[in-house]
Amino acid sequence: MNVTIDLSVVPIGVGVSLSEYVAACERVLSEAGLSHTLHAFGTNIEGEWDEVFAAVKECHEVVHQMGAPRVHSTLRVGTRIDREQTLDEKIRSVEKKI
Amino acid sequence: MNVTIDLSVVPIGVGVSLSEYVAACERVLSEAGLSHTLHAFGTNIEGEWDEVFAAVKECHEVVHQMGAPRVHSTLRVGTRIDREQTLDEKIRSVEKKI
Amino acid sequence: MNVTIDLSVVPIGVGVSLSEYVAACERVLSEAGLSHTLHAFGTNIEGEWDEVFAAVKECHEVVHQMGAPRVHSTLRVGTRIDREQTLDEKIRSVEKKI
Amino acid sequence: MNVTIDLSVVPIGVGVSLSEYVAACERVLSEAGLSHTLHAFGTNIEGEWDEVFAAVKECHEVVHQMGAPRVHSTLRVGTRIDREQTLDEKIRSVEKKI
Repeated sequence: MNVTIDLSVVPIGVGVSLSEYVAACERVLSEAGLSHTLHAFGTNIEGEWDEVFAAVKECHEVVHQMGAPRVHSTLRVGTRIDREQTLDEKIRSVEKKI
Repeated sequence: MNVTIDLSVVPIGVGVSLSEYVAACERVLSEAGLSHTLHAFGTNIEGEWDEVFAAVKECHEVVHQMGAPRVHSTLRVGTRIDREQTLDEKIRSVEKKI
Repeated sequence: MNVTIDLSVVPIGVGVSLSEYVAACERVLSEAGLSHTLHAFGTNIEGEWDEVFAAVKECHEVVHQMGAPRVHSTLRVGTRIDREQTLDEKIRSVEKKI
Repeated sequence: MNVTIDLSVVPIGVGVSLSEYVAACERVLSEAGLSHTLHAFGTNIEGEWDEVFAAVKECHEVVHQMGAPRVHSTLRVGTRIDREQTLDEKIRSVEKKI
């Protein structure tokens, strides 16, 4: 089952600057070979369900290894069985109707 | 790694009444043996990471099997390595300070 | 327009113990006279749109006044024009189908 | 108080194609003069708190007027009092550390 998700990772207990933790998570996604796009509040990711969620788990693990005692993330998760739809197609579908 | 999550599942393309789909997801969680508590906007779940996310995947699969062409879910996900904390402890920790 | 929301407030830059901030937010909701129910990952709130969102803003303000340099909150927001539905009805509607 | 938010609007009860509703919401944001950027799972918005949340409310109203009996949206909301930070700065801050 393919899935598209939007992931936002917030380390807690490491002060106010979170960008190095988010960057580490981006590297996890790249090394996993997953298509992903960063935005100002998270990252859009697409791929096979198990691969995508293995990467989410690894993000939590890596951010803990960097010293964060708590990690709070939020996800939007979309699956559909009527047809395939990539992240790019989702955006274009809206943009042509604006 | 233990995890606590808050899961909200929204089937798309099946009309406005969503409760039977949410109920099916509750049954998935019960059959998985996961501790979980329903609230008006989702379900708090706690357990071992892989078991919890296997149940989230099964929720999506079951809701599709019931006829939903699209499923949109949102999750809050919490992990901590400083100490164990159950869902009940999270609530009590706030309530005694109100 | 009535609205039901699920609000989770995460102060950033104040260490790992967040419960006193969440408790302060609960007091804001009580003082605003809004019906609300705490769960382990947030708070369900119902009321008139402008009153509910005024309280969300006040939560952010109060948590900043308590010393948090950053506040990250997540909300699920539901409106419907087909009929009225309280938070309690949303839960019962699922529970009777489990 | 300035705020940055990430808004995802999901109309319920209008079938599986949601892009025209999201597009209508984008037009609301443009007409409100708010800086905003569409991604595959939502829209990043920045501005003064009251103006941003007035636009969120108008999105719900417009989507209902287009025929959606229910609207379910999810928001991430960020405020900070230590310094100003635009949406662009948030992205660049991560990108230079990847």
